[in-house]
Amino acid sequence: MRSEVISVRTGARASVVDITEEAAAFASGLGDGLLHIFVPHATAGLAIIETGAGSDEDLLASLSDLLPADDRWRHRHGSPGHGRDHVIPAFISPSVTVPVLGGHIALGTWQALCLVDPNGDNPNRQVRFSFISD
Amino acid sequence: MRSEVISVRTGARASVVDITEEAAAFASGLGDGLLHIFVPHATAGLAIIETGAGSDEDLLASLSDLLPADDRWRHRHGSPGHGRDHVIPAFISPSVTVPVLGGHIALGTWQALCLVDPNGDNPNRQVRFSFISD
Amino acid sequence: MRSEVISVRTGARASVVDITEEAAAFASGLGDGLLHIFVPHATAGLAIIETGAGSDEDLLASLSDLLPADDRWRHRHGSPGHGRDHVIPAFISPSVTVPVLGGHIALGTWQALCLVDPNGDNPNRQVRFSFISD
Repeated sequence: MRSEVISVRTGARASVVDITEEAAAFASGLGDGLLHIFVPHATAGLAIIETGAGSDEDLLASLSDLLPADDRWRHRHGSPGHGRDHVIPAFISPSVTVPVLGGHIALGTWQALCLVDPNGDNPNRQVRFSFISD
Repeated sequence: MRSEVISVRTGARASVVDITEEAAAFASGLGDGLLHIFVPHATAGLAIIETGAGSDEDLLASLSDLLPADDRWRHRHGSPGHGRDHVIPAFISPSVTVPVLGGHIALGTWQALCLVDPNGDNPNRQVRFSFISD
Repeated sequence: MRSEVISVRTGARASVVDITEEAAAFASGLGDGLLHIFVPHATAGLAIIETGAGSDEDLLASLSDLLPADDRWRHRHGSPGHGRDHVIPAFISPSVTVPVLGGHIALGTWQALCLVDPNGDNPNRQVRFSFISD
């Protein structure tokens, strides 16, 4: 299995970072198979959404509405409200798989692979790409 | 890797379409491995739930409660409230994998593989099945 | 493909059960590949979160807030409010994949693989591990 870790800068605020190009570069030339993408962090996830038309901000706003950064959380390490960052990966999984055909990731026209990082306390993240074929 | 795209009619209203039979037909005779199911659309997802006892309607109602089709969304293309359709795949992922044993998808008794399409503007959808074995 | 089912006791109340050790034991010695974890039940899911610092309870509390066990559900079998248990797997998927490197599951430091079972009516659950390599 080919497997590789990249570093992604997500910055000091909640962010959605498009990593489609990095995934495409990893899969390039690898033929047919499945690309597994994994984030080895407890406060980040992966989403396949459209970027560049507001949906990345809409997603962050939804997460703030549904899982607010207030004082309800039992998990109390880190910044106030940080407990919600630990619940988000249950909903926005750190694991996703996409098909690869002829070395090209087979996303739809409007789909982008995104790292969702609600946690401004960790400005640098890792993402693991793994490729498996028959 | 065996990979194939099917077309699914989801109609002009938000819908949950059971595609278990189509998945079973694709996997039939393929031995042991993993079946990856992928929706190449930015406003649809996949869920494994029970169908036929109201949970499909319950899921659509929950999505309407949690991510309402109102004017809060930055994404403003399409029908009013359509921006929420672009956030849904972050929660209901377009990618899911199920085990295949002896050419049979190993779902539990009450599980069905479903295409979740909140977007009435796209009545026809594609789903890609890919099968990988050792 | 190596595939195996384990039994997990989740008890008579909603619970989050850490099954990281069981997954690690299954993957031990298997080299490089992908570990697919699957729950063949219609009212349970899998999450990769931190355990032991309150986030497991936070997740259950979030699910109670977002998908309450009240009388809104069309699905009416089982205990009152049980319909919500059937919607949860759409959000907390019963399918997740993690990388395996040299026979070790490549989770991050604070990540744990967890069975999320909101349904106290089924105190015993099954989980299927499947391993695939090139």
